[in-house]
Amino acid sequence: MPVVLVTCLIRLMTGPCYVGDEQSDEDLMKALGATLGQQPGNHFKEWRSEEPPRVVLNKLDALGYKVISSTGIGQTCIWTCYKP
Amino acid sequence: MPVVLVTCLIRLMTGPCYVGDEQSDEDLMKALGATLGQQPGNHFKEWRSEEPPRVVLNKLDALGYKVISSTGIGQTCIWTCYKP
Amino acid sequence: MPVVLVTCLIRLMTGPCYVGDEQSDEDLMKALGATLGQQPGNHFKEWRSEEPPRVVLNKLDALGYKVISSTGIGQTCIWTCYKP
Amino acid sequence: MPVVLVTCLIRLMTGPCYVGDEQSDEDLMKALGATLGQQPGNHFKEWRSEEPPRVVLNKLDALGYKVISSTGIGQTCIWTCYKP
Amino acid sequence: MPVVLVTCLIRLMTGPCYVGDEQSDEDLMKALGATLGQQPGNHFKEWRSEEPPRVVLNKLDALGYKVISSTGIGQTCIWTCYKP
Repeated sequence: MPVVLVTCLIRLMTGPCYVGDEQSDEDLMKALGATLGQQPGNHFKEWRSEEPPRVVLNKLDALGYKVISSTGIGQTCIWTCYKP
Repeated sequence: MPVVLVTCLIRLMTGPCYVGDEQSDEDLMKALGATLGQQPGNHFKEWRSEEPPRVVLNKLDALGYKVISSTGIGQTCIWTCYKP
Repeated sequence: MPVVLVTCLIRLMTGPCYVGDEQSDEDLMKALGATLGQQPGNHFKEWRSEEPPRVVLNKLDALGYKVISSTGIGQTCIWTCYKP
Repeated sequence: MPVVLVTCLIRLMTGPCYVGDEQSDEDLMKALGATLGQQPGNHFKEWRSEEPPRVVLNKLDALGYKVISSTGIGQTCIWTCYKP
Repeated sequence: MPVVLVTCLIRLMTGPCYVGDEQSDEDLMKALGATLGQQPGNHFKEWRSEEPPRVVLNKLDALGYKVISSTGIGQTCIWTCYKP
């Protein structure tokens, strides 16, 4: 599973970040320090890290995942990371 | 047909994703688990997968398509994938 | 003229796309199936194709133009393509 | 100074473009056909070209600057160009 | 720590830029001419440079950091830089 999507809300210089969906690899998610939770009103769970995105992207880099692309929708910033 | 556009609405950690237009390659669309449908009020059809975007991008990667770029318009997130 | 900008409005899975300005190469524009027109209220002309963006990007790929980047402003999605 | 930022407002198929800030290289700016000006209410100057962005990006390409990335904020489209 | 995120607000042709969070490398931040501060109402600190983004990206380039991607959320423009 070579693709990881990292998102943060509004503030770039602080956490939390969302780093995975329910099907994400559990070992990878734990290596990122994330925990699986569910926000009220959502019918799906997500993996959440308390770190700012820069720290999460550095952890992913150490695991071999490079940033391919970034984008924003609404107040959310999204990085697409990829491990060849 | 080396380009595939993957889009999802608002929520990144859950499906559905839209993965093709009416002229998209049917075999590729089915390999992504997508079905062809038409939303009320649209004069065009689209291929829709129930998977979250990360899973779709991983399936595309297994088929040789790499993420080139991502962007957002309104509440839609779009990945441009390419198979050399 | 190695750069081509492709834009579409709101809907990704249907045309039209805008593929060039008045100074764009006419042969290239015609190879993309585009025609030169002017929208009411605009003081400039643009080349317009009736195809969805995926089809236009595939035509550009066949002509040697690769997608470098994509972005969205307002309801417009923009691909920057480049032929080395 | 290997980075150039090119921006245009709303309309992609016509000028003007903004191509530099007050500290930008004057020779490069003039090679792009830009002039230094100041908009009312701004406390800073910017280099402005009357060409559409595609033409500016082609001029930059001829000078060795490649498009690395593009993005949009509000009604502004921004290309990040880089000369290795 | 190979990833640096550079952000600026609304105006591209003038500073300030935000270049780091509280965990950012202090030596790198100082090499960029940034100072650590806290905006009223924020519970976190950020490193701020008074330079326009183009100048900051050039300084990062001189230190080996390349622009990988750019994006915009709201009125903020974000560059993701990476040092291999």
